[in-house]
Amino acid sequence: MTEMNVHADLCVIPLGVGVSVSRYVAECQRVLQEAGLKHQMHAYGTNIEGEWDAVMAAIKRCHECVHGLGAPRISTSLRLGTRTDRQQSLQDKVSSVESLVNGK
Amino acid sequence: MTEMNVHADLCVIPLGVGVSVSRYVAECQRVLQEAGLKHQMHAYGTNIEGEWDAVMAAIKRCHECVHGLGAPRISTSLRLGTRTDRQQSLQDKVSSVESLVNGK
Amino acid sequence: MTEMNVHADLCVIPLGVGVSVSRYVAECQRVLQEAGLKHQMHAYGTNIEGEWDAVMAAIKRCHECVHGLGAPRISTSLRLGTRTDRQQSLQDKVSSVESLVNGK
Amino acid sequence: MTEMNVHADLCVIPLGVGVSVSRYVAECQRVLQEAGLKHQMHAYGTNIEGEWDAVMAAIKRCHECVHGLGAPRISTSLRLGTRTDRQQSLQDKVSSVESLVNGK
Repeated sequence: MTEMNVHADLCVIPLGVGVSVSRYVAECQRVLQEAGLKHQMHAYGTNIEGEWDAVMAAIKRCHECVHGLGAPRISTSLRLGTRTDRQQSLQDKVSSVESLVNGK
Repeated sequence: MTEMNVHADLCVIPLGVGVSVSRYVAECQRVLQEAGLKHQMHAYGTNIEGEWDAVMAAIKRCHECVHGLGAPRISTSLRLGTRTDRQQSLQDKVSSVESLVNGK
Repeated sequence: MTEMNVHADLCVIPLGVGVSVSRYVAECQRVLQEAGLKHQMHAYGTNIEGEWDAVMAAIKRCHECVHGLGAPRISTSLRLGTRTDRQQSLQDKVSSVESLVNGK
Repeated sequence: MTEMNVHADLCVIPLGVGVSVSRYVAECQRVLQEAGLKHQMHAYGTNIEGEWDAVMAAIKRCHECVHGLGAPRISTSLRLGTRTDRQQSLQDKVSSVESLVNGK
């Protein structure tokens, strides 16, 4: 397998910096933007789509940058989806459910 | 503590039903709709907001209904956020990050 | 469905209390002990086994007690496994993998 | 930052292969073993400890090998913990909680 696409859902939680974490989440958005990856923030994480190594490099960079902003500890919750049967975009996944929901 | 609000991010994965899971995800959307809970699907889960017991009852109902549709096994990934310092809606969380991202 | 057994893996992360979280994790162990649920801590969470409502009541109690100890915000990562095809204990799951690993 | 240590908790879920997933979990144990990483399976995942790039390379290899065994789709739940304040082993984390639990 030379290339593997991944759908990720990333939730980075900085510890030791108080209750407000939006500054650190914003930094991760900046990292994903700079990485040129398709991504979409929601209220409890961020969807990311791309080639495995590029997505993982960006997630590592998120940890490095959040530590760089002063967070001494990070606990990240991550979902990773891969499939070999067919290509599917993040939008495809939402659309296929929505058509079922609306069709009822 | 009499009431506790929770922000959840729910990703229900049915096993033993093949690769296509959209039918089961759609069923969960229906359950959340019927429960009258604020919820927003994204490409790797669904944000839910409400009182703890109501949210948890709906998540249990999701498992029951997905089993009812024929899935013999389910593995769910769930994030749960509670706070006592202040009230915050799902939209507040996204907005506070977006204002930081756009302000840069 | 009258009763549903669940395997949970619980990782409670208190925010706004500094980098050391062991005091809060210990409190959750105490809650699970008092609830009389089978549970086993590991280095990144705690396995719990029991009837759905009892497990969920204990997890709610964990959030309440961790807030009670002074944590203003909590972000929990939770896995939930249910199945209708057969009963399986936490130990069964580990054993069935180990027999495959050792049989190779 | 030249090197970053990570504590991971990995739960790989193959879809489209029926309800029994132990064969695929065993394959991941083999991959982690071959990678020479410290790891410890529990009933709902596997703790892994090591340098970030080595851990992530092993997780990618898990996805590749599980697809290689015939699973057309995988959904992984992953926790990732990093800290810059001090070194801490997986065992340290468990021990610091256990001493608090037993001290009560």
